[in-house]
Amino acid sequence: MSEAGEDVARILVGLAEKARRASRSLARASEDTRNLALFEAAKALRERSDAIGAANQQDLAGLSEDRNAAFRDRLTLTPERIEVMARGLEDVARLPDPVGRILAEWDRPNGLHFRRVATPLGVIGMIYESRPNVGADAAALCIKSGNAVILRGGGESLHSARAIQAAMEDGLRAAGLDEACVQILPSADRAFVGAMLQASGLIDLIIPRGGKSLVERVQREARVPVLSHADGLNHTYVHASADPAMARKVLLDAKMRRTGVCGATETLLIDAAIAPMLLPLLVQELGAKGCSFRADNRARAIVPTLEAARADDFRTEWLDSVLSIAVVDGVEDALDHIVRHGSSHTEAIIAEDAEAAAEFLNGTDSAVVMWNASTQFCDGGEFGFGAEIGIATGRMHARGPVGLEQLTCYRYEVIGTGQVRG
Amino acid sequence: MSEAGEDVARILVGLAEKARRASRSLARASEDTRNLALFEAAKALRERSDAIGAANQQDLAGLSEDRNAAFRDRLTLTPERIEVMARGLEDVARLPDPVGRILAEWDRPNGLHFRRVATPLGVIGMIYESRPNVGADAAALCIKSGNAVILRGGGESLHSARAIQAAMEDGLRAAGLDEACVQILPSADRAFVGAMLQASGLIDLIIPRGGKSLVERVQREARVPVLSHADGLNHTYVHASADPAMARKVLLDAKMRRTGVCGATETLLIDAAIAPMLLPLLVQELGAKGCSFRADNRARAIVPTLEAARADDFRTEWLDSVLSIAVVDGVEDALDHIVRHGSSHTEAIIAEDAEAAAEFLNGTDSAVVMWNASTQFCDGGEFGFGAEIGIATGRMHARGPVGLEQLTCYRYEVIGTGQVRG
Repeated sequence: MSEAGEDVARILVGLAEKARRASRSLARASEDTRNLALFEAAKALRERSDAIGAANQQDLAGLSEDRNAAFRDRLTLTPERIEVMARGLEDVARLPDPVGRILAEWDRPNGLHFRRVATPLGVIGMIYESRPNVGADAAALCIKSGNAVILRGGGESLHSARAIQAAMEDGLRAAGLDEACVQILPSADRAFVGAMLQASGLIDLIIPRGGKSLVERVQREARVPVLSHADGLNHTYVHASADPAMARKVLLDAKMRRTGVCGATETLLIDAAIAPMLLPLLVQELGAKGCSFRADNRARAIVPTLEAARADDFRTEWLDSVLSIAVVDGVEDALDHIVRHGSSHTEAIIAEDAEAAAEFLNGTDSAVVMWNASTQFCDGGEFGFGAEIGIATGRMHARGPVGLEQLTCYRYEVIGTGQVRG
Repeated sequence: MSEAGEDVARILVGLAEKARRASRSLARASEDTRNLALFEAAKALRERSDAIGAANQQDLAGLSEDRNAAFRDRLTLTPERIEVMARGLEDVARLPDPVGRILAEWDRPNGLHFRRVATPLGVIGMIYESRPNVGADAAALCIKSGNAVILRGGGESLHSARAIQAAMEDGLRAAGLDEACVQILPSADRAFVGAMLQASGLIDLIIPRGGKSLVERVQREARVPVLSHADGLNHTYVHASADPAMARKVLLDAKMRRTGVCGATETLLIDAAIAPMLLPLLVQELGAKGCSFRADNRARAIVPTLEAARADDFRTEWLDSVLSIAVVDGVEDALDHIVRHGSSHTEAIIAEDAEAAAEFLNGTDSAVVMWNASTQFCDGGEFGFGAEIGIATGRMHARGPVGLEQLTCYRYEVIGTGQVRG
């Protein structure tokens, strides 16, 4: 490892050890104390609003010319956006405490009483890109769930991230908590990302938020558990029994409400039995909203004007006003398509036939499956979680929107009166 | 990678892809079908008892001379032990179904109904050593929980493992399930272990069962999630408020009932306020049972005959009739010792003072914490799980005894009536 690499590793170990100590005290802090830290941090964000704005101006001034307006906008912090961040912390403080929940409780014939009690995970590594508010949102969810967090933001937002971090430290101090509950890496050196991904035993969970290339690097290199999703290649399947009016309304929302979100539908699967009647209407209505299409031959036989799908179109997350279309023969055929091309994120079936719907829900192995609803509901807020730190499509620990409950694990408490196994 | 290595990798990918397909059908199989497979496999074990015994004789005949009697005994399969294996499968079949449990359920103001439903994990890799019955036990828990499993047993038990595997395949076939739900590696080539540990995306979870060196290799090298524990360096802390009679009874069991199990107590922590009265009695009673001691200076000041603890004794999992002893000053001091030296497995406090007990339970971050009970209760059977596949001391997904419920994750089912986000 290069000397610089060794420095990076040494610095990260130091941060992680401070985070571990901080996490132990935070895990034992009362709900009131954790909430106080969030309310005080919100106050500090408001008090530091000018300083945060100035730091953000530094970041914007340093931005290379080739960054487009969308990137510049994601990086920009206005007083209004800082106020939204502050309110976000207060909203998280008002959510129910995920720590100490009794997840299960039972007695054994020998009189032992068993409790499964929700506990913080420990130390979380948050790797994100340009939007500085992600750091504040993540820190809020981690403090509330009793976890220490190490933040690694994008290099372009480093000044903004540090200014926000200072406000989080104010809040922690004011509540008598260890400032090291929320730490930020001293530089945007990409080597730190590599070091975080290797920090098995020092960091308990990595959550990447950002573009597909970042998430895929994390998934590829991490020796630490990761909650993430690289793709939201979501399918809406219109079953032969679908109510046509519902199918039209739901698909329009699932594809076009916001095309850039991971819950957007990318592929329409439609039963051959209903396609001749319904597909032309769906295409007409979506097209009128500016959507274009990539269709298989069976769909083009019904609507010849549709552009032909290329080999990998059904594996493409468009994140745009583009919809892949395939005609299928029933639930099994739809499930086969989803298994072959999907990303285990969110799938929906539109159907009046409850048996078909049950077969579909039970047949996918995606994190979220919906019946007669828009895939765009795949969002922690819409689930009622209050806030989310990401969406997970893996198979361990947590799947779907990751909220406060998913940032906890559990311990067993066994209460006896002197029992022995003998 | 060597050509042999490439062969190993290719073979493993083939097995894993068959396992993935099998896991999809198994995940959708009814509880009755999964249970039928287990009852039929039990029948096949009995019918094949002679063949399994003969295969086991081959393994025993091939055993190198330097293997000790204990190893030879662990490897040996008698008709009685085969019957116990068969009953084990039937016991698992009779346990409640972990798949499809509704873990949570709620409605949103927009009328959407949310369900968190337990689902199988997918494909599990089981890496174990000499005891052939571990393969049958693991296969039973995986089939019941809807997971496909790839078994990698020790080279010394390969014939036995294959003969058991054949019975599992009989059971799966008889229930109309894919035989690939339970597969075994074609050879004991250690390269297969490495390939399994790298099989991210092909294998969803690795469970190692065996000696510390095996588990530590898995933890060190795995790119796949792992549920495991390397150490059970468990502490029993006798608080100043302890009932002396209870402390004597519980410690004797915690240390001496079975010294070789991972739930055995390895270190006694005792408050300075009660040690002068109680420690001599504890030492006398444990010593009478053949226990020896490694004590810190404060303990030796009370019982001068105690052998002095060396630097690393408090980090040693004795798995033997040896007890490390340290005198501490209250709960915080005990917790500090546990954080410094423990393995996050199981800790117990003996106390009448409920506040002190609560402080202790809430202050450790071990998987299992006990109040007035023997640490030897850390066992899936004693927890009421019916069967366990291992014990986990990590921080993600599951901690403590890993039973059927811990072999599942969940998906969200969202039931609507045509809702859109708009």
